[in-house]
Amino acid sequence: MNGIESLLYGIGIAGVAFNAAAGVLDAGRKPFDLFGMVVVALAASLGGGSLRDVLLDRTVFWIADQSYLIASIAAGLATFALVRFVRLPSRLFLLPDAIGLALFTVSGTQAALAMGAPWLVASLMGVITGVFGGIVRDVLCNEIPLVFTGELYATASWAGALLLIGLIEAGVGAGWAALAAGALVLVIRLGAIRFKWRLPVFVARI
Amino acid sequence: MNGIESLLYGIGIAGVAFNAAAGVLDAGRKPFDLFGMVVVALAASLGGGSLRDVLLDRTVFWIADQSYLIASIAAGLATFALVRFVRLPSRLFLLPDAIGLALFTVSGTQAALAMGAPWLVASLMGVITGVFGGIVRDVLCNEIPLVFTGELYATASWAGALLLIGLIEAGVGAGWAALAAGALVLVIRLGAIRFKWRLPVFVARI
Amino acid sequence: MNGIESLLYGIGIAGVAFNAAAGVLDAGRKPFDLFGMVVVALAASLGGGSLRDVLLDRTVFWIADQSYLIASIAAGLATFALVRFVRLPSRLFLLPDAIGLALFTVSGTQAALAMGAPWLVASLMGVITGVFGGIVRDVLCNEIPLVFTGELYATASWAGALLLIGLIEAGVGAGWAALAAGALVLVIRLGAIRFKWRLPVFVARI
Repeated sequence: MNGIESLLYGIGIAGVAFNAAAGVLDAGRKPFDLFGMVVVALAASLGGGSLRDVLLDRTVFWIADQSYLIASIAAGLATFALVRFVRLPSRLFLLPDAIGLALFTVSGTQAALAMGAPWLVASLMGVITGVFGGIVRDVLCNEIPLVFTGELYATASWAGALLLIGLIEAGVGAGWAALAAGALVLVIRLGAIRFKWRLPVFVARI
Repeated sequence: MNGIESLLYGIGIAGVAFNAAAGVLDAGRKPFDLFGMVVVALAASLGGGSLRDVLLDRTVFWIADQSYLIASIAAGLATFALVRFVRLPSRLFLLPDAIGLALFTVSGTQAALAMGAPWLVASLMGVITGVFGGIVRDVLCNEIPLVFTGELYATASWAGALLLIGLIEAGVGAGWAALAAGALVLVIRLGAIRFKWRLPVFVARI
Repeated sequence: MNGIESLLYGIGIAGVAFNAAAGVLDAGRKPFDLFGMVVVALAASLGGGSLRDVLLDRTVFWIADQSYLIASIAAGLATFALVRFVRLPSRLFLLPDAIGLALFTVSGTQAALAMGAPWLVASLMGVITGVFGGIVRDVLCNEIPLVFTGELYATASWAGALLLIGLIEAGVGAGWAALAAGALVLVIRLGAIRFKWRLPVFVARI
């Protein structure tokens, strides 16, 4: 495994851990038992990548390599232990969720490009990998998915995926392109949370 | 691509466009942002065929051919633009939804038959292709799926799928069989909306 | 097909039938039409195994063998006919649900082991096969999934899957291992219903 591959592998593991933590923090506001927590952590952290791999007909990443499964369960249990002893602000899960979104957008887009997907499909795979786990998490927690609530979310993911594809097309190295794309997702998403950046909401006429 | 294949390809593209329009018209009654709209349009128009292809282990149709993706986004945005300027009746989305159901039932059943699936599986694939996108759309819009509300819906789809399989078995050409099956779905579904045709609803004893 | 394979095949068919019955008993408390019932029966009984097969990239079991599809529809319709004439206690569906959970945990874990999956993945596949159909059923019926409500449920499934893997590792025959694992799931799950065994519920601090 060379440097770039190690970097992308680390990005994937870190994305799984952050999304598992966000899942537990989100589920923590509901009367879930320990196992329900673990299920939400697994769904939030493995859901997007699983859907991407099934659609692309690749071997599902956490079946090919158990490390992701272990990272998800470990991060979920660690977060669970933490929140039993420390009182955390209720919107804290937005931070690991944003980091997970950035990491998964990059790893999802890279995986689709590596399969030879055309650019529109590859960027959509980045978005699916980034947002699908969070949708499943919110549906399991019986909340309106974050992605639909107006603040820039999937838009941040799509912008990052398109930047990544553009930079790679322009000949920029995969490591720098991944860094720039992930940073763009994070900046847009955190800015959207802080400054309430939104897309125009549809005014229903019907 | 010969005449029949062109016809079936056109049926698939048209089904995607009508279902994307129905998705936007349905989502338009909720405070979704522009991106949420596009997601609902994509899920409504690509969901059923994606599930069919994953179950049949075919390459997912919109990954093999980006035209479907472009048709879905274009139809979704066009509908979005239209409803911002024109006041439309609230049940209007039932019409593109019914047309999409007919088109997808035909293309889903055909795709399963072409893979050599036995008749019961093939007819169920037609129904899955027809109704699954609408179920996802309604779940995302937090409404009870149309398919469960009593009016003939999946029944219309199944009747059409069975007619298609029967006609092809009887030696009728694929084009005429597709036309007759699609017309049957549309007639049953529109009749069900207009005249409130329903299956017996289960009277709970438990 | 030798004795063990026949046994496992029978376990799979029986699991499908029990889960279809549980689906209809659950849906029977809602105003679903006949077709909605069949859809819930199909989703409850085929959902978990379908997800397992798609993740493992096997041919989906009910497409490879229509018997499962027929067993599901037949058990669903028989249950539907029964409950129209007999008044049944409202929590009765918990019994076929528990039997279905035990049967599917065994068949799901066996299928993953037969594909050469490592133990953690194989046990998770058993849990997914066991619980996913019930999650879809409850979401379609607009109820909180049983698996998240605190009583031991997925935990029972996981314990059975781990016992099955341990016994096979220890050289116990596949038939006896399947029997012991299925019995363990059933005992834990029925005990949890009767004696309200629960995992600690997370006390939200956030």
